[in-house]
Amino acid sequence: MNFAEYRRAFQPKCPQILEQVESLQFVQEKELSCDPNIEPLFPHTARQSLLVAKKGGEKLSRVLQIGVVFSGGQAPGGHNVITGLFDTVKKMHPQSKLHGFLGGPDGILQSRSLDLTKEVLASYRNEGGFDLIGSGRTKLESEEHMKRSLKTCQSLGLDGLVIIGGDDSNTNAALLAEYFLANHQATTVVGVPKTIDGDLQSENIPISFGFDTATKVYGELIGNITKDALSAKKYYHFIRLMGRSASHVTLECALKTHPNLTLLSEECLADNTSLLRVVDEIATLIERRETLDRLYGVILIPEGLLEFLPEMKRLIETINELISEGTKEEKIPQKLSGEESKVFSQLPPSIQKQLLLDRDPHGNVQVSQIETEKLLIAMVKKRLEERKKFHGTFRAVPHFFGYEGRSGYPSNFDANYCYSLGSIAAFLVREKKSGYMAACGALHESPGTWEPKAVPITSLMQLEKRKGKKVPVIKKSLVSFSSEAYRTFVARKDAWKWDDDYQMPGPIQLFGPEELADAPPLSLRKSS
Amino acid sequence: MNFAEYRRAFQPKCPQILEQVESLQFVQEKELSCDPNIEPLFPHTARQSLLVAKKGGEKLSRVLQIGVVFSGGQAPGGHNVITGLFDTVKKMHPQSKLHGFLGGPDGILQSRSLDLTKEVLASYRNEGGFDLIGSGRTKLESEEHMKRSLKTCQSLGLDGLVIIGGDDSNTNAALLAEYFLANHQATTVVGVPKTIDGDLQSENIPISFGFDTATKVYGELIGNITKDALSAKKYYHFIRLMGRSASHVTLECALKTHPNLTLLSEECLADNTSLLRVVDEIATLIERRETLDRLYGVILIPEGLLEFLPEMKRLIETINELISEGTKEEKIPQKLSGEESKVFSQLPPSIQKQLLLDRDPHGNVQVSQIETEKLLIAMVKKRLEERKKFHGTFRAVPHFFGYEGRSGYPSNFDANYCYSLGSIAAFLVREKKSGYMAACGALHESPGTWEPKAVPITSLMQLEKRKGKKVPVIKKSLVSFSSEAYRTFVARKDAWKWDDDYQMPGPIQLFGPEELADAPPLSLRKSS
Repeated sequence: MNFAEYRRAFQPKCPQILEQVESLQFVQEKELSCDPNIEPLFPHTARQSLLVAKKGGEKLSRVLQIGVVFSGGQAPGGHNVITGLFDTVKKMHPQSKLHGFLGGPDGILQSRSLDLTKEVLASYRNEGGFDLIGSGRTKLESEEHMKRSLKTCQSLGLDGLVIIGGDDSNTNAALLAEYFLANHQATTVVGVPKTIDGDLQSENIPISFGFDTATKVYGELIGNITKDALSAKKYYHFIRLMGRSASHVTLECALKTHPNLTLLSEECLADNTSLLRVVDEIATLIERRETLDRLYGVILIPEGLLEFLPEMKRLIETINELISEGTKEEKIPQKLSGEESKVFSQLPPSIQKQLLLDRDPHGNVQVSQIETEKLLIAMVKKRLEERKKFHGTFRAVPHFFGYEGRSGYPSNFDANYCYSLGSIAAFLVREKKSGYMAACGALHESPGTWEPKAVPITSLMQLEKRKGKKVPVIKKSLVSFSSEAYRTFVARKDAWKWDDDYQMPGPIQLFGPEELADAPPLSLRKSS
Repeated sequence: MNFAEYRRAFQPKCPQILEQVESLQFVQEKELSCDPNIEPLFPHTARQSLLVAKKGGEKLSRVLQIGVVFSGGQAPGGHNVITGLFDTVKKMHPQSKLHGFLGGPDGILQSRSLDLTKEVLASYRNEGGFDLIGSGRTKLESEEHMKRSLKTCQSLGLDGLVIIGGDDSNTNAALLAEYFLANHQATTVVGVPKTIDGDLQSENIPISFGFDTATKVYGELIGNITKDALSAKKYYHFIRLMGRSASHVTLECALKTHPNLTLLSEECLADNTSLLRVVDEIATLIERRETLDRLYGVILIPEGLLEFLPEMKRLIETINELISEGTKEEKIPQKLSGEESKVFSQLPPSIQKQLLLDRDPHGNVQVSQIETEKLLIAMVKKRLEERKKFHGTFRAVPHFFGYEGRSGYPSNFDANYCYSLGSIAAFLVREKKSGYMAACGALHESPGTWEPKAVPITSLMQLEKRKGKKVPVIKKSLVSFSSEAYRTFVARKDAWKWDDDYQMPGPIQLFGPEELADAPPLSLRKSS
């Protein structure tokens, strides 16, 4: 058998309580507060309670028709949400049916779906990617979209619609749930928290799926690079990691590998850090390590860093404004104010050019395209020359790890977690819990004791300005300075600067000893 | 236990014949031909025979003093060569000693070494990297170097010196072996074939160590990216892979993952391919895939590609010459001849700039620094616009995989292979087989039946011009068009272009089913 065949034969582990489908119910655990600005927008789905799974309440077997859709970027484990959902509805009734909407939310709008049978699913069990039904980035927000979605659900006679996606997609799930209830459409809308970035989490959602696998892939690579740095003894590796809005990925990778320096966007924002200060911090690290005869090192950089540096953020906003006012590219530098002009002049020419010329379809600077690792290398090089305290040769190697982490085979943790989330979603549809997100507590324990939950999506929402309008959205979860993960990091990061304590987590093990193969993300560990 | 602890507890598997140290001998299998230009330069070590391990010839136990050194870039498994060597010499006599020269060949010249004891080695068993004793790039070529090396071996009373390195380092081993014999120094010099690039191989050396792990790391990542491409359905991934002189790494990764297009430097050289033809081939792929509704794809590019395109090679050589004659950078474009000027003008401005400005310490263009994947993306984009046959949006993502593959935990194959090579090196020292490289045949079988061998290094050598002088060097092994690996590739590559047949080899498994965890590289497979 090859790797994929072995993987398909893997049987995901689930919370034990999910096994007896006929004697499981979701009961109210406690009321969750809801933002007062959100409440009036969701008369049917605000003020819902947190639900937890309990034994009891014998259920009759029931045929369910469920639609499922992927929304947004890939995250490892997506197919297992579908197989968990499928296996559970089939246990509820063998005539239950699962429809997979094709190409993301557009598949709902155009009512294009695939009948997901046992045979179709067989070759996607425990596989990475979203290729079974594809995904898309269309947002279900407008009245028109709501109407068309309702029509599709109606014509397919769906008892449930399961939306697998990130914060925006789950926001859409909440809007749909509310709209369906207001319009007496019986389809229960359930969300499933997906994103490798980990920024869709809350007190009751310890982590989104995909985060574990992605950080394990990146952790393997960073660990390999630390070992290479320690062996070659002459390179500084600048490693940018996916995660534009929050630095959870970078923090988890730091805990896994103990690099010499880890930049966290949230710290930079809180400290009002300037780009020059970041550059100086790196220069100081390199200079001091030289006095320890260490001419090598590893530095982690979150993808979104620049947008969290207040001066850079202002510069980018100003350039966007100037462009929208019709200012020609070559005139922009002289139109910048004193501070902005200074910041701009400090940037390497290639980045200046990128800021002026590379535009997204809306005419905005494409911040996610900026190779921050190369920007920092160029600026650090110059700064080391200016400060004249470093006497060696500064050799730097840039890296960006992103796509290679989004579609890998899910780790056992994600395979189990996703399968469980899919199963929970099936129960929520059976119990008509619309506007909820499937969740699991106690994820740092073994899967058998995980605690199935349902979180009202509205409890995670607030009003934010988008394209000039205040709209309800799920609040992105940034790295919390009071989290165990962050406190562990802070307690150790200074030691990592000077005393190399590199760790190599190694490649993801899917077989072999459970403590390796089934380990949850370090960020989930509780204080001991 | 964490990953590293599990890994340290792994016991490498060896050819069974190596187990009885007292009843093993290396006997002549057959004479190997030697380049007639090489013979006169190596009066003591040319015309040696291929040796194979045989049972018999009872040996007395003997105390051995052996020095070992890493030379050149990292390759996974290096530490296992040392532990295999150590465990075997200790079996030969408990008072045998192993000295690890520090920082590469400089450690020999300066007689800086570390006493490698059981305790020192304990935490490096089955670990990646070369950090136990470090490595270096100094070449032992001059008379002065020979003398100093001899002095070090003399003062430490070394019975053997084991040089772990690539083609150049093993060339140095051959020079040292010859010099020692000519000067009546009793130290036996043995080489061990190391390089992830796989270009140090021959009829009797199926592969160098490190190749398996590196290609498994890259294979995991490429496999993940194929799945991402298939899920997102909108990106072309251009992936450059380490391997400057030969495309073995790229070919092995192609066999593992079945990308849509794989460029091989050797094919380009044989076909006298122009850069524009490469660009056109990619453009045609993209246009035809669009007619199949496939706006995505994966393309593999060997690091050394540009140097194998005859016109680019000539352009680079001319620029190097012009610079060495003192031509100013800005004057270079107008000094180029017609054809060269045309090639130069087709390049994207950023690459033109790199060719003119980025120099190595000798003033030469830094070809290895050129981001060939970005060059191709820019040229393909332009070409698609010119040809007007592609109607979609060309979205391309560049990747380079190199350092992350050099220092990972060795795969079981490399862990076993390296341990065996170290053990074989110990036997060769005991039998005073100087000028040989340790090798193993039948590597596609299970380790117990691998066939320990010793290959005369001179049999691999030829005269080549280096810095204007003809010198003896080991011939780099390029991809052979008659190899099973290449023929498999050729038979299938056209199908891979249109019918996506992406394979995901998954992360390296070090535990679990043997057929996954112990699999040799696909390039080693024999025709069935």
